[in-house]
Amino acid sequence: MGPHPAVAAIRLAVRRVLHDILTGHPALPAPTGPSRERTPTPLVLVACSGGADSTALASALAFEAPKLGIRAGGVTVDHGLQPGSDLRADEVALRMRRLGLDPVEAVAVTVGREGGPEAAARDARYAALDTVAARHGATAVLLGHTRDDQAETVLLGLARGSGIRSLSGMAAVSGADGRYRRPFLELDRQTARKACLVQSLPVWDDPHNADPAYTRSRLRHEGLPALEKALGKGVVQALARTAQLSRDDADALDTWARQAETSVRDAAGVLECAKLYALPPAVRRRILRRAAIEAGAPAGSLFARHIEEVDRLITGWRGQKAINLPGRVVAQRQGGRLVIRQG
Amino acid sequence: MGPHPAVAAIRLAVRRVLHDILTGHPALPAPTGPSRERTPTPLVLVACSGGADSTALASALAFEAPKLGIRAGGVTVDHGLQPGSDLRADEVALRMRRLGLDPVEAVAVTVGREGGPEAAARDARYAALDTVAARHGATAVLLGHTRDDQAETVLLGLARGSGIRSLSGMAAVSGADGRYRRPFLELDRQTARKACLVQSLPVWDDPHNADPAYTRSRLRHEGLPALEKALGKGVVQALARTAQLSRDDADALDTWARQAETSVRDAAGVLECAKLYALPPAVRRRILRRAAIEAGAPAGSLFARHIEEVDRLITGWRGQKAINLPGRVVAQRQGGRLVIRQG
Repeated sequence: MGPHPAVAAIRLAVRRVLHDILTGHPALPAPTGPSRERTPTPLVLVACSGGADSTALASALAFEAPKLGIRAGGVTVDHGLQPGSDLRADEVALRMRRLGLDPVEAVAVTVGREGGPEAAARDARYAALDTVAARHGATAVLLGHTRDDQAETVLLGLARGSGIRSLSGMAAVSGADGRYRRPFLELDRQTARKACLVQSLPVWDDPHNADPAYTRSRLRHEGLPALEKALGKGVVQALARTAQLSRDDADALDTWARQAETSVRDAAGVLECAKLYALPPAVRRRILRRAAIEAGAPAGSLFARHIEEVDRLITGWRGQKAINLPGRVVAQRQGGRLVIRQG
Repeated sequence: MGPHPAVAAIRLAVRRVLHDILTGHPALPAPTGPSRERTPTPLVLVACSGGADSTALASALAFEAPKLGIRAGGVTVDHGLQPGSDLRADEVALRMRRLGLDPVEAVAVTVGREGGPEAAARDARYAALDTVAARHGATAVLLGHTRDDQAETVLLGLARGSGIRSLSGMAAVSGADGRYRRPFLELDRQTARKACLVQSLPVWDDPHNADPAYTRSRLRHEGLPALEKALGKGVVQALARTAQLSRDDADALDTWARQAETSVRDAAGVLECAKLYALPPAVRRRILRRAAIEAGAPAGSLFARHIEEVDRLITGWRGQKAINLPGRVVAQRQGGRLVIRQG
């Protein structure tokens, strides 16, 4: 008799990603082959909070990695936001060791305030993961985000109203060197929970996940269920699919904007209004956004309404004044040119 | 003392659209000018259900049109779905006449079943509006959809999970000849209601709008409020903005796909796999979708998963069999060519 379907599902998801990691990195050995002995064994880490999703992920990694000649380790981050979080982290580390993961680390971080509590915790967490991965020379770090997390992320992006890039959720592969992998992005949360249950793995429910002070928690426990009630059970899948389609679309439009950018600048590199005007609005606004960021505007503070206002210098010119953008960047039409620079 | 802010807002929205209609149609007279006497006075109709949104719209049209030398008329559609709907339609027509609209018509339609009750009613309604507009030689038909309707439409599109085109909601200008205009697309429902109230205009609340059997109604009364509670009051604006940005993005990508399409066909017009492979996925899938529709697949039955499967003939070729698409269309890889045709 094979494993429980939920366990089979989490293992398959991890196996696929490990296979991708092996074949996608030419510097690494193939799963089998004559050169295997001569290259170092790759290490894959799992980031585990002790919650059901990442505990399921840790168990699947511990099971699948040895079969592919991969070393499997784990890291848990102590955000120091709750009393006893250090003991909790040690406990999670112990659980990972019991699963057979090695090396295993519990790292404490100091969470700042920038961008709100959720963003600050995330920033601190990824910085710690980066450090641990580098210290151990890890090829990849697996993250336990599920399709449900993805659906929530899409809705959070939707609430910003800043376009399709913010609808594209989390990528299956991210980080500068493609270090972060999310094997469970097409798997539902229920399957991960079930896999822990049938494997008798203890899991910890982060009280933040149920705290209505957190936007994501409100979304999870109230917003998304209400949306499912109104629109039907397929909403989570639809949101996850929207993420993937939006990501591809946003990538293609970024490519177009990057390619078109050189053709709309004069010999001195200044943007020419007539050439910008001839582009589709979606491409033109991306070029304007890139130009503003290049001039020093912080990407996170640059909203769609800023770009729309700059765009009207091209499409609705009636002698407007210079437009002030975040980061002391100023956009100004001068004759047939659009000058965007730090003032 | 000027009009109440809500009345000022609805009038401004209508004035802008009427101005667009006049300037956007070179065949029409400018609002003022020497040629005005010699061309026929344009007619703009309002589609009015008797609800608050379209009643507000009718009142604003009746007020603004004469000032711009435009004739203003109205049409109300009796869907015949409720007992007494014919009397109701006559009443709405009477109210429009009282506002000074002329001509005014109440037209009865027969609602079929195709695509579900909401889609069938919509199809019948637009067919009737088209007929009435043509009979009177109307230049435009104004529709009362508000920003709240737009937000609901975006969420309905999101639930389909079929990509950014379905997130782009309703267009401010639509119909083959740009006949349909939605002046209230950036105005909230509350403003329209308030404008009716302060003008003492009787309005009719369609019981369908509160009937939980209808998806849109569930969304309006349960889904969207829960989402607002979780994500904040700006959700409706964010959704409306998402619609606009998605529309522009979808338009640009359609343009790209149309332009790229010729370059990926051989001399005989057959798609070449290697050239398709070199395109960004977002562009390639749009070309595949267009090709399937051209071969006879009904657009409404062609889902993202169909196109993904065809796409794997290009990106993940391992000798797959021919793929069956809706409308007896078959996609098949033959050597380095992708053949899509009705089987």
